[in-house]
Formats: sequence, C-alpha cells, structure tokens
Amino acid sequence: MPTDAPPPARPDTLLPPPAATVAATDAPPIPAARAWAARYDGRAGPAIDMTQAVPGYPPPPALLARLAEAAGSRAASGYGPILGDGVLREALAADIATTYEAAIGPGDVAITAGCNLAFAMTMATIAAPGDAVMLPAPWYFNHRMALSLRGVAAVPLPCLAEDGFIPDPDRAAALLHPGVRAIVLVTPNNPTGAVYPPETIARFAALARARGLWLVVDETYRDFLPGHAPPHALFSDPAWRDTVIHLYSFSKAYCVPGHRVGAVAAGERFMGEFAKAVDTLQICAPRHAQAALAWAIEGLRDWRIGNRAIMAGRAEAFARALATAPDWRIDALGGYFAYLRLPDAAPDALVVAEHLAAARGLLVLPGPFFGPGQERHLRLAFANAEEAVIDAVPARLALAGNR
Amino acid sequence: MPTDAPPPARPDTLLPPPAATVAATDAPPIPAARAWAARYDGRAGPAIDMTQAVPGYPPPPALLARLAEAAGSRAASGYGPILGDGVLREALAADIATTYEAAIGPGDVAITAGCNLAFAMTMATIAAPGDAVMLPAPWYFNHRMALSLRGVAAVPLPCLAEDGFIPDPDRAAALLHPGVRAIVLVTPNNPTGAVYPPETIARFAALARARGLWLVVDETYRDFLPGHAPPHALFSDPAWRDTVIHLYSFSKAYCVPGHRVGAVAAGERFMGEFAKAVDTLQICAPRHAQAALAWAIEGLRDWRIGNRAIMAGRAEAFARALATAPDWRIDALGGYFAYLRLPDAAPDALVVAEHLAAARGLLVLPGPFFGPGQERHLRLAFANAEEAVIDAVPARLALAGNR
Repeated sequence: MPTDAPPPARPDTLLPPPAATVAATDAPPIPAARAWAARYDGRAGPAIDMTQAVPGYPPPPALLARLAEAAGSRAASGYGPILGDGVLREALAADIATTYEAAIGPGDVAITAGCNLAFAMTMATIAAPGDAVMLPAPWYFNHRMALSLRGVAAVPLPCLAEDGFIPDPDRAAALLHPGVRAIVLVTPNNPTGAVYPPETIARFAALARARGLWLVVDETYRDFLPGHAPPHALFSDPAWRDTVIHLYSFSKAYCVPGHRVGAVAAGERFMGEFAKAVDTLQICAPRHAQAALAWAIEGLRDWRIGNRAIMAGRAEAFARALATAPDWRIDALGGYFAYLRLPDAAPDALVVAEHLAAARGLLVLPGPFFGPGQERHLRLAFANAEEAVIDAVPARLALAGNR
Repeated sequence: MPTDAPPPARPDTLLPPPAATVAATDAPPIPAARAWAARYDGRAGPAIDMTQAVPGYPPPPALLARLAEAAGSRAASGYGPILGDGVLREALAADIATTYEAAIGPGDVAITAGCNLAFAMTMATIAAPGDAVMLPAPWYFNHRMALSLRGVAAVPLPCLAEDGFIPDPDRAAALLHPGVRAIVLVTPNNPTGAVYPPETIARFAALARARGLWLVVDETYRDFLPGHAPPHALFSDPAWRDTVIHLYSFSKAYCVPGHRVGAVAAGERFMGEFAKAVDTLQICAPRHAQAALAWAIEGLRDWRIGNRAIMAGRAEAFARALATAPDWRIDALGGYFAYLRLPDAAPDALVVAEHLAAARGLLVLPGPFFGPGQERHLRLAFANAEEAVIDAVPARLALAGNR
C-alpha cells in the first residue's frame, strides 16, 4: 500500500521535535551528491561515480563461496561473543602482528559491525557529551557526524595543502584544551589520501601519552599502502595499550562493505568499557562474515597484495590523466582518494561539484562536505574506477570552467 | 602471539580515562550470568541456559539456503541504500499492513542492523544528551544502557506485579517532566513477558500526542503473540506518523540473530533525521540477510504461525511445570519470557541467580539487572527450551531454598 503524503497534524497533537544534536548534524553527503546526478542527461558519456569509496572489483569467488557456506550454516544464525568470534580475533591479531611487526594477540582486538560503528562505539567509550575530540581537518564526514550526534565537540586540527595534508603535532599541541579527550588520525586519509609518515604518528602518540589523551588511529585503507614496511611503529611499544585505539575495516580490503565487518585494536582497559557499548549497540557483528573473513585473511593474502598493485596503478593513471588538465592540481593522492584543488577561475566546490554531476556526469564530493575551509577542493574516490574510466576524467573536468 | 599482562604505565604516561557516561553504564549482564555458570559441576544435570532470548529451534533449511545464496552474490557484497533495500522495506511494510490491518508503505519503514541498533539510533534521533526518556521498569537492560551511554536520563515508569506489569498511563502522566522527550513501551515485554492491551497502548499514544512526546513501541516479540488480532490499533490513525516510532526485530521471529537485522516504522519527519544516525552508525544493514528476509516474510508465513503455537505450548508447559513449585509465583508470562517472584524465604535475586547458575546449572537473569525494585524477581527466557527441558526447571528451582 503506498503511503500518501502525511496529513496535517491533528489539533490535539504537539509535534515532538528531533533531538537538538541530530538537528545540528549534517545530512548524509553521498545521497546529496547522487541527487545532483539525477539531472544528468548522459551528454558527456556514462556517469562516473567517484563519491563513495567502494572497491571497483568484486570479491574473489573463493570468498563469495565461503560467505555463502557460512551464511547457510546454523552456527552463523545465532548470537556470538560480544567482542567477536575467537577465530577472527585470532586471525586479525596475527595479521596485525605481521603487518606491524609487533606482538598483538586476540585479546587486543574486537570485531565490529563495520568501521563506522567501531568509531561511534569508540567515541561512546572515551568521550562523554560535552567533551571534545580533535579531528584532522578536512575530516571524514561520518566522524564529524558521530561526534555531533553525541553532543561531543569537534576540535579541528587544520591540515594544510602545503604540508601534503599531514597533520602537525605541534599545531595539535597548541590547539588542545582541557575538554579534549582524544586525538583522531586517519591514515591513509579520507578525504585527502595523505599517508602519514610513521614519525608523525609516533609524535602524536607521544603527545597523547604526555597529555593523558586517547589516540584513535583509523587505518581503514591500510591494505592499499604501497610497499611492505609497517605503516607505523606504535604497536612495537607494549605501552601502546595505554593510549592507542586502532580502527580497521574489512570492507575495502576484502570488497565486502555490504557484509558490515570492522575491528578495533586496543588495550584491555579500553576493551572492558568498550564491551558495554558493543553489547548495547550491535550485540555482535554478523557471524557469517566473521567466519569467512577468518579464512580470507590468510587465504586471500596474495590477492590483497595484488590489489595494492592495482591501486598503485590507478593512482599513477590518475596522476597521469590529471597532468592533461593543467588548471587542476592534485594536492594529495594516496590510498583510495585524490584531493583536487579547483582551478583559480572556477567557482567554489559546491557549485562545481553540482555542475560536474548534473552536467558532466562526474560524481565527486565537494570539499565543504569535509569541514570548514575546504571550498577550493574536491574529493575523488579514484580507486573505484578502472584505468580507462580514470582516463576519461580530465575531459569531464575540462569543461567545468566553461559553464 | 599471546598478549602478556599489560606492563605498568610508563612514567611519561597519563592514563586517559573512559568517558564518564560509559563508566556510569552497567556491564553487559548476560556474560556476568554465564560466568557464574562456569563454576557449575553438572551435579543437577545438563546446564539449562535461560539467560538470553535465543530461538530454541533453527532457521528452516529454506531460509538458510536463501541466506547462503544471497551471501554468495556479488550484489550483497556492496553498500546498499541507507534506509534499507527496497525489496525488504516493501515486504516488511506489507507484513505490518497485514498484521496491524493498516495502510503502511515502504516509505514508512527503515531497515537496521538489529533492533538494539534501531533503538540506539532512534534515541540519537529524538533525545539529546541531558534530555530524559521514560522507560517502563523493569526495563530491557540494553535500553537503559543505550540511554546512559548517551547521557540521557531514564525516567522509570514503575510497572507493578499486581497490574500484571502493564504500565499505567495515568502514572506515566504524573511522572512526566519537561525534560522528557519520549515514552518507551515494550510489548510483549522484556523482561516480564507482559502483553500490553491495545487500549493501554492507545492511551499512551494519546498521552504522547497531547504532551508533544515521541512514543517508541518496541515489538521485537510481536510474532509470538497468540491469536491473529492486531497487537494495537495505532497504525490505523494516519496521524501515527507524527508521534509513533515502532521497532521490530527479525532476530527472534526468523531465528537469525547472528545476521543482525531489525527495523523501524515511523513517519517521514522522523526518517529524515534518522537517516543521519543510520548513515553515521551503520551505513546500511547487512545486505544478504535483507535479500533473504524479503523472501522469508511471505515464504515463511506458515512456519512463523506454527512457531506461535510452539511458543504458546512452551508457555503452557512452563506454567504447568511451575505449578509443581508452589513457593514460586509466575508474576507475568508471555512472548518469550516468564518473570518469577522468588519464594518469601529465599534470599534476594542476585544471590539466588548466582546459586542457581553455579550450583544448579540453571542460568537465569536476576531482576536487578532490569532496574531498581526488582530484587524479588528472576527472568527466565523459557522460549529457548523444549518442553522436556522446561519440565526440568522446577527441580532446579526447588533446591534453591536449601542452600
């Protein structure tokens, strides 16, 4: 039965308001950008959607087979342990131990229903309403939204194009105030693609330790880092458990965002409190995907390494393609994203992004979706697209100035 | 690599504290009860776990086959629409329309990663930190935990054994104060099992309308109601969309808690704000289960109806069995749960529940896990157990007094 337009409220009805915190929260950005594209008539070729970070290749058949097998089992239909199934906690701990060359055990990790929920539950564990959390700016919009939904203030840590969008620990130290409970880092970064050097991350850890703050490091895109050096050395110091909270997502690395699995690595002092948030918000992460991913961590290691090469190839292809659009500057590029500076003659990013979507069929997210001061930037999730599609991007951009 | 005991904090480390709100939140209750049972030596027979509401029969093979098929598809591996896949929204809307004899459309429903997350995201949408929400008491512990994690005060609405634990709208009206944003009802109730009469629910809706409050009705257990009359008539009045938020779970009705799917039905004024919370916390619900459940709503209708008879049979078996334990009184019984009053001579519920688990292998939850004033009650999720197991319960209880 279709729903008719809502009738006017009855005379005896006082319309209850939304929470002040949700009213102050931004609307989901990706549907907004896609709505612009609904007006696109196809004149510049097929639409190219670079709004959302979605793997541009499918999960391998062997993983789909394991997901199917697990989802068809009676075992996966039941509730599981709050902090995750032991088999996946063990496999992920071993993977982190290998990747970071550190002693990490299954008790150090917990499995979540996606990394967004991991972030929100982490914030529920370390920041009460009225507290503040420092976010690198530009920020990942869902991080900002999670804080404002919670009534937690975001303290922006400006990351500058001239620094390659690498955050500066000294600038952070100067901006901290007593209400700040945590510093968030995102590397490889969303939206800029910047990859933070291990030395920078170490300095932030030292700052957090010295000030009694949590350091939350979201490494959703770590599997796409080129090379095999550990992304940072935090886990090599057993005292990491006092302050560091590492966030991870299986969505991008294994091409399974629809199955909703992420993870947290942290010390037991955090985990004891975190379990309260996990039990309350998610109860447990989807079981079937935990079983399949426990296999995939080793079973798909070579495939994952191969994907790094694909991503590196796409990054190169993107840089090469953009070289043919000299008015546009790549201010940062890495992991999944490019952060482009608009030509000086172009209007601001919201106008350009709407025009690109509606008139040129190129869906990107404008800088202001990622926080203040981003009016001259666009985020392109280039990793979604094959190289032939990437090659078509400059032609779409070229006409953005000729409106 | 095993994790060693955490070393003492380094001299340059100030240990960051947990959020004040999480520190004030109770620990997950079910692991606490199960920890007592770790001491049980088996002397009274196999352990009987009546702590958690988990279906005591498996999902049917046809549903497992659909879950497997969907999980193995490339389509289910990708992100889906924020408010749920259209096919499941349509199927659930039609099911609600049939069950409640009302005009409900797909735009009225949204799909969530479980009903606990539905509740938490609903609270993020309607109650800011510092606001208050009225919960029937005894309450569902995760509801209380969701509020305290959020810094939202719970206003207990005492539900009395002499009323069959049916909440009283007049008592509610007297307890409301200007900070209250919503009234929560849970029917069939968790923990008591009480089924609220439609007239009572209607009076609460009128109270909410008159006071400008949201009315949140959690009907996780509605598929187990005996008979076919609509559980309430709220949806028959199109103005329900101004105030009513209905919560639903697929976990119990379809025996798939491990796949994490719940739902919300509400008006578009709510949904617009709710989408912010959904995008931030869950992004989307697990896709494979949405596809399989869209089939199951009609495909398993007869099976679901059959389960009602099983549940009714277990409720009867439980009442019959408890009649042989005359010191114990069933204060309420319905849906999934029985709420038992302790014999007058017994110690308080925490002591008895620990003794039952550790010495008698009967795992139940003590009343204090469900809020203040519950020291003389135990919750038993009898629906987990087959009738032969239910018959064994009185013998376990009988000796609880003889410690």
